[in-house]
Amino acid sequence: MDHKLRLRVLAGNLAGHRITQLLITHLPNIRYLCGFTGSAGALLLGGAEPVFFTDGRYTAQAKAEVQGARVVIEAKSPLVTAAAWLKKTRRNGALGIEAEHLTVAAEARLRSALPKRLRLHAVSGMVERQRMVKDAAEIERIRRAVQLGSSLFLPAARTIRPGVPEALVAAKLEYAARRAGAEAMAFTTIVAGGARSALPHGHASAAPIPTQGFVVLDFGVILCGYCSDMTRTVCVGSPTSQQRAWYAAVLEAQLAGIASVRPGATAGDVDDATRKVLKKNKLSKWFTHSTGHGVGLEIHEAPRLAAGQTEVLRPGMVITIEPGIYVPGQGGIRIEDMVVVTETGCEVLTSGTKELIAI
Amino acid sequence: MDHKLRLRVLAGNLAGHRITQLLITHLPNIRYLCGFTGSAGALLLGGAEPVFFTDGRYTAQAKAEVQGARVVIEAKSPLVTAAAWLKKTRRNGALGIEAEHLTVAAEARLRSALPKRLRLHAVSGMVERQRMVKDAAEIERIRRAVQLGSSLFLPAARTIRPGVPEALVAAKLEYAARRAGAEAMAFTTIVAGGARSALPHGHASAAPIPTQGFVVLDFGVILCGYCSDMTRTVCVGSPTSQQRAWYAAVLEAQLAGIASVRPGATAGDVDDATRKVLKKNKLSKWFTHSTGHGVGLEIHEAPRLAAGQTEVLRPGMVITIEPGIYVPGQGGIRIEDMVVVTETGCEVLTSGTKELIAI
Repeated sequence: MDHKLRLRVLAGNLAGHRITQLLITHLPNIRYLCGFTGSAGALLLGGAEPVFFTDGRYTAQAKAEVQGARVVIEAKSPLVTAAAWLKKTRRNGALGIEAEHLTVAAEARLRSALPKRLRLHAVSGMVERQRMVKDAAEIERIRRAVQLGSSLFLPAARTIRPGVPEALVAAKLEYAARRAGAEAMAFTTIVAGGARSALPHGHASAAPIPTQGFVVLDFGVILCGYCSDMTRTVCVGSPTSQQRAWYAAVLEAQLAGIASVRPGATAGDVDDATRKVLKKNKLSKWFTHSTGHGVGLEIHEAPRLAAGQTEVLRPGMVITIEPGIYVPGQGGIRIEDMVVVTETGCEVLTSGTKELIAI
Repeated sequence: MDHKLRLRVLAGNLAGHRITQLLITHLPNIRYLCGFTGSAGALLLGGAEPVFFTDGRYTAQAKAEVQGARVVIEAKSPLVTAAAWLKKTRRNGALGIEAEHLTVAAEARLRSALPKRLRLHAVSGMVERQRMVKDAAEIERIRRAVQLGSSLFLPAARTIRPGVPEALVAAKLEYAARRAGAEAMAFTTIVAGGARSALPHGHASAAPIPTQGFVVLDFGVILCGYCSDMTRTVCVGSPTSQQRAWYAAVLEAQLAGIASVRPGATAGDVDDATRKVLKKNKLSKWFTHSTGHGVGLEIHEAPRLAAGQTEVLRPGMVITIEPGIYVPGQGGIRIEDMVVVTETGCEVLTSGTKELIAI
């Protein structure tokens, strides 16, 4: 990971945001910029050199991990330590803060600890925009996380049968993930059977898998800090002709979404592509969420693939394509892959069949 | 759960904080006050009746779960919906916001959507202070979560042997937790062996359990929304006399901490009690964190049991007592129970031996 390059690129953007310094407090942004993976830290850019602040619990870890920044360790909270540092360094001007992450209370504490010559200036998404386009080392890590995630689907599908609690399917999937080397799950595993499959976020519950109907499996792992995200829908019992038709429509929409991904297309274009197919099949009113999102150090990152989003896709962006339909009381279907935008289109990272599996 | 009572108690506190209304955005606070367990919502107090705002994904769930509040559902984000509602209702005065949770950017969006007659007023910890003292229904849920958590320790200890990766010990523990009915783990499981046991937050890694030394196991489950938290330290191989002495000192400190818990004692008193024992044993310089914290819907809640904390303990508070020592390069020991403050002292909720187990 070329942390120094990332820090230099970000430092070059400060003037464009009318700030002389930037205080980064969002932990995934800190990890991206200097490699620190602990749970308490702040990173200051725009001075003579980048400075990373943490507390005594992380002395050894900061030394081992932090690249491209001087490390300052104090007993107090990193924000207080950063404020004391800023007071000492005598730089003037506007100090950028991460407005989407810093709380109102933390901002007030920071403001009261800083000299008047420093103005706070709210900035949004500066590091997130940089993180949208992944570099080769990141894509390699994501590829490995997605491979691990993909390998879990078929064994998990084999544990699904009528009467088995959804939570047990999730437990076995998560155990297999850990055994395969996952650091953690990337989000709460979704296993939603029968009518519960119509809940877009049906976390695995104690409910038993019914004798007939869809089961949505949505899960992801973290490997070397990077997330995977994958959804498949299987059918318990023989699918009805309507269930087959619904599944075929969602799969057609998902493939249309993938086909629409190319440099120069907007995030909104990809959403249009999936929605158009479901509209043609008179199912778009059941497609109640957006088509996808970026994935990286966080499970939900920029860009957002939703109607009207003007963000232009560029090579190196890693996104999900995950249309779904949710018919209340009847059931739901979602199919999700992760893809990386290439020079000419995209490469699907997720492996594993998308044909309808009947159980 | 008597949500209506909780809402009434909180409403009665608004005037004391010089606010006429309070907008609650922190999800655990929302769950505590009205029962909603979803991931998007806002709750407004101080009008004609409490009003809960969410989006269309949660229509069915809000109807099923929310108690004591009117439910308003719109396509937009709950904060935007709440702002539109506030604009319509024509109430004046100060609107409290949860400063420890609302981001600077969210506050700015809220401010720009509100009429000038409404002033925003930052408040901190109002709901958290109410949540510190658990009611009978909460204590019952916590008791069940702690029982489940406690049942995991001995089986997990049996999976520890030299050469086994820490992550595999964690995987088996988490699988057992899920099979026993846990909704999720309450935090990233810590399994830290040998020199790694000297890291207070040594998440289970790929490192193998060494042939001799301490292994710290720190884990918790979520059951019916409530968390458990427990730490035990075992020794692989025959403990040296120094290891025995260190362990005995930490256990003595932990028991002294428990003995000091009673209504009227301060949170700082309990910290003093554990630290004093480690000081007597010339080990206090290795005790680098505080003695404990509240536990409930969140794994870390008020009060904080640290030096100088003046919060007075009251019956119904649920806290951890978890002194530890961490000797760099050599190893660490932590022993943690959860206790509930009673009328006369405390009841230890965690079960399971605290004698040193040699593996």
